[in-house]
Amino acid sequence: MTATVSSALSLVDDQHRVQVSQVNMPPRLLLGPGPSNAHPLVLQSLALRQVGHLDPSFLALMDETQTLLRYAWQTHNRLTYPISGTGSAAMEATFANVIEPGDVVVIGVMGYFGHRMVDMAGRYGAEVRSLHQDWGKVFSLETLRDALETHRPSVLALVHAETSTGARQPLEGVGELCREYDCLLLVDTVTSLGGVPLFLDEWGVDLAYSCSQKGLSCPPGISPFTLGPRAEEKLQARHTKVANWYLDASLLAKYWGSDRTYHHTAPINMTYALHESLRLIADEGLDARWARHQANAELLWEGLEAMGLACHVVRDYRLPTLTTVCIPEGIDGKAVTRRLLQDYNIEIGGGLGDLAGKVWRVGLMGFNSRPENVLLLLTALEQVLSDLGWTSPRL
Amino acid sequence: MTATVSSALSLVDDQHRVQVSQVNMPPRLLLGPGPSNAHPLVLQSLALRQVGHLDPSFLALMDETQTLLRYAWQTHNRLTYPISGTGSAAMEATFANVIEPGDVVVIGVMGYFGHRMVDMAGRYGAEVRSLHQDWGKVFSLETLRDALETHRPSVLALVHAETSTGARQPLEGVGELCREYDCLLLVDTVTSLGGVPLFLDEWGVDLAYSCSQKGLSCPPGISPFTLGPRAEEKLQARHTKVANWYLDASLLAKYWGSDRTYHHTAPINMTYALHESLRLIADEGLDARWARHQANAELLWEGLEAMGLACHVVRDYRLPTLTTVCIPEGIDGKAVTRRLLQDYNIEIGGGLGDLAGKVWRVGLMGFNSRPENVLLLLTALEQVLSDLGWTSPRL
Repeated sequence: MTATVSSALSLVDDQHRVQVSQVNMPPRLLLGPGPSNAHPLVLQSLALRQVGHLDPSFLALMDETQTLLRYAWQTHNRLTYPISGTGSAAMEATFANVIEPGDVVVIGVMGYFGHRMVDMAGRYGAEVRSLHQDWGKVFSLETLRDALETHRPSVLALVHAETSTGARQPLEGVGELCREYDCLLLVDTVTSLGGVPLFLDEWGVDLAYSCSQKGLSCPPGISPFTLGPRAEEKLQARHTKVANWYLDASLLAKYWGSDRTYHHTAPINMTYALHESLRLIADEGLDARWARHQANAELLWEGLEAMGLACHVVRDYRLPTLTTVCIPEGIDGKAVTRRLLQDYNIEIGGGLGDLAGKVWRVGLMGFNSRPENVLLLLTALEQVLSDLGWTSPRL
Repeated sequence: MTATVSSALSLVDDQHRVQVSQVNMPPRLLLGPGPSNAHPLVLQSLALRQVGHLDPSFLALMDETQTLLRYAWQTHNRLTYPISGTGSAAMEATFANVIEPGDVVVIGVMGYFGHRMVDMAGRYGAEVRSLHQDWGKVFSLETLRDALETHRPSVLALVHAETSTGARQPLEGVGELCREYDCLLLVDTVTSLGGVPLFLDEWGVDLAYSCSQKGLSCPPGISPFTLGPRAEEKLQARHTKVANWYLDASLLAKYWGSDRTYHHTAPINMTYALHESLRLIADEGLDARWARHQANAELLWEGLEAMGLACHVVRDYRLPTLTTVCIPEGIDGKAVTRRLLQDYNIEIGGGLGDLAGKVWRVGLMGFNSRPENVLLLLTALEQVLSDLGWTSPRL
């Protein structure tokens, strides 16, 4: 078949040429584990017309984005830039760049995303040693020390904010431990960046990643990544090429650094959006932002308690960005989430893995961390539970 | 250091808390190799507020997007969906899924992106055999047959539309050849999808990828990917896990298929935009769209010829989406592109690799393939060249 377009007889098959409408989605309030609603100014920036990915105006925007990301993460790392993919791609970027086949990697598994780390690290040839903790609990410094002493890994990977459980892994002291045992500290900050206190440099974190659609209030599709000096050394000392072209930090550094060497076409509009979301964080200030997240989370916890609903994670390790709420005895959790969505356009999440069917996951992240959202959710949840015949033990 | 937000003394380092303005970019007309300007309706869709990535409304949108993508590519492949990254990620997805260490892969290198394929395939353990052709020329069916006869590869990879040279590799007959030699045909359609006749099934293409920011007139950041039944067989028969978690088609198929198993959070807004760009293609119709691209390219070629400027690629293999224009003797190509950008907000590209300093690259893609853009570019180019002291040999 030759493909001449001037042919009177079309060769085009119209089977999949369906008539559809322009996108028009329901007005959801996203109070689940993510995505969370983007800030209106972020959506505005997202829709600006494009410039080229090597346009002087875009290069200046890239520099500002990197600087603002360093502020949000509290790091001076040179290699701090967004990955052109979602948070999972940024997660993979951290492992891909510092693992060579045979490297021992200790991974703290206290939820779904720890399991994902195990799968990813294994694909890059790591000898994975998993530490396990009950979903909703965290690792003690002693447990981590024992693991480093036993396994002598080159990387210790932890999840700072487990999106599947709502638990916050304390990181104070872990960096020192990793230096003592000469291993890199790799941290998942997907559900903490922009909502939960984070001091990457102060805590000695060598590699971290996050996503755009939670604490940053940007749509998903672009993801913060940072790699500190100790990780850079390991990257430069590799014996093998990074086993992933798209996420190779040595290539990406040349585009995001002063060389501006073409690697791939940056997601222009998503970069506009990320820039705006980080600008809003600098504008609000981290202290104020963290305090806001904490205050609204406490409002939620008090409201849940007043209704007689329990949180799955103990107060000390509870994330302000994501709360796991125990589903009461006799209630079908999915019926509740379905009702909230259908009747009130409110999305909350269900449990994953060990917590499937046991908890709901409620996110109060970035722009969505506001008292009016807490109030609406509590009222709607009470209404739906009452409709389903539930009576609070408090009544 | 403990991270209490209630502390009166802030622990936050404000060094990177820079004051920047909201994004405001110059109004560029993007007539380079890409990105090309997005269609206004696509930008409108992009900025709609998000829903969750498992929201019933989003699942319906995903299904429509897949169907529309099948139309644009003229394929019935079940596994046809966007990759959550740029075109380079989709390129990597094709190699990552069907290559196992030791597989022989023949790659046709007739420009920059063929070289990239070689680098990528090597990282997945392929034994790469490169065929080389001068930049701007294409491979004959005889050359391809000889290569398959000699190397007996499991994959033959070709670039349909070389963005670095503007050459169109004819694909008629290559699929039959690959079946004869029992190998998969993998094709780069980055600069052809949505602008150049493409019949994936008819041509026996087993794996293909593209980007969003050229012929589809969508911003970059999400990228079409398809894998046909023969490639699916090879994927299912793998002895090793796909050496890339993010791009593992067996996992992605469960999210894009009826299972809806969570893999990663889809880039919601970019999916809206892609859906709208594909809807616009179905609305216009492929025949009309291809004819429009061809007509506007011919208008450009005639105008260039009238000015005394030559095209680098012979007429028969010249892409309608991307034209490489020979920089005249004595003219500094970069000075011209700089002037076009600064004085007229028009972006065209320079040459890459073997063609660096020798050609300009002019793209007429998707929404930007319009007579008024051709007219403006020709006039502005003539003005800039005249300002730089160039006299057309035609005068």
